[in-house]
Amino acid sequence: MTGRFISLEGGEGTGKSTQAKALSAALEAKGLKVHLTREPGGTPGAEIIRDLLLSGHDEKWNMRTEALLFAAARSEHCAALIKPALERGEWIISDRYIDSSRAYQSVGGQLSDEDIMALHHVGSQNLMPDRTFILDLPENIAARRAEARDRGDSDRIGGRGRDYHHAVMTKFRHYADEEPDRVKLIDAAQSPEDVTQNLLRNLSDLMD
Amino acid sequence: MTGRFISLEGGEGTGKSTQAKALSAALEAKGLKVHLTREPGGTPGAEIIRDLLLSGHDEKWNMRTEALLFAAARSEHCAALIKPALERGEWIISDRYIDSSRAYQSVGGQLSDEDIMALHHVGSQNLMPDRTFILDLPENIAARRAEARDRGDSDRIGGRGRDYHHAVMTKFRHYADEEPDRVKLIDAAQSPEDVTQNLLRNLSDLMD
Repeated sequence: MTGRFISLEGGEGTGKSTQAKALSAALEAKGLKVHLTREPGGTPGAEIIRDLLLSGHDEKWNMRTEALLFAAARSEHCAALIKPALERGEWIISDRYIDSSRAYQSVGGQLSDEDIMALHHVGSQNLMPDRTFILDLPENIAARRAEARDRGDSDRIGGRGRDYHHAVMTKFRHYADEEPDRVKLIDAAQSPEDVTQNLLRNLSDLMD
Repeated sequence: MTGRFISLEGGEGTGKSTQAKALSAALEAKGLKVHLTREPGGTPGAEIIRDLLLSGHDEKWNMRTEALLFAAARSEHCAALIKPALERGEWIISDRYIDSSRAYQSVGGQLSDEDIMALHHVGSQNLMPDRTFILDLPENIAARRAEARDRGDSDRIGGRGRDYHHAVMTKFRHYADEEPDRVKLIDAAQSPEDVTQNLLRNLSDLMD
């Protein structure tokens, strides 16, 4: 059996966590061993770094420090959970991974995509997902969902302005154009059940 | 007036902190504005990361995560303290800097010097000291001093074995061979006062 690594990406309020859970359950129902995880975090060490990243005010870390902390959390996540599971032939479903770092940390122009990938090389030896789903939703709907959920206490990064989140989403869509085999753009405006079915259809080529 | 950036490096128990303080006082007595700082840490954000790095047991972080966390702390230190001070024409005396990352994180062979410098490029845009002093002491003396000071509660990295610390010191000496203009090997077995005078002599070319 081959272990497979699936990541879900997209802005706040696009349904990533819901779909990660639903996809994980659907794959387990097919008899696969699945680890549902998330970034930043996913292991005890990485969750400590998550707390540093998401709490406090926006100026707490500069963009370079932020990128290094995300890469540090990911390094721990890869070494302690993702790689060992894949080697055992198990599946990983991660709510966010490297494409979030590429999209969120390169907005603003201080860091290039090459910079983010250089950190990924050192931290996680360039481990890439077998498939990445970008949950795509018209931005006004996503913003409304995120606001309804957060009720004003969104985290350090979620709380950035609409222009920032628009630029992030543009980057996500670009990755789907650039790497069509790995990265699939998924219409997230459908019902949750339909979205999950769409994800499963887009995984059929990875099932043994 | 030109700002100058001086780092002190070497193993545990070689007298870095004592010399950083003495050098700082001697330069202030010459009328220079001096910031005495240390790594990991040196700014509030970087000190939070320092606590993560130095507390807990050795297996808390894998070597890649450790290197990323040091680079994250350094990025904050450079952006919030070192660069602004240098731009104002002030001096920085730092107890440890990038050469400690190069020496400590590349021992064991998981990470290369190129890896460490790639993190430094992304995190701190390759900012290098104008002069680096390696305080060199026979290892049995350094170990005795470090043990006497720590009384068994050395930190997460200081507590690693003698082979590790020997390999680190070998790397430090190599940097002095490689970059003789920037990196000076200083005999730390002399009296503290003599060591400070030796440091000052080795800074005369940097004074305007």
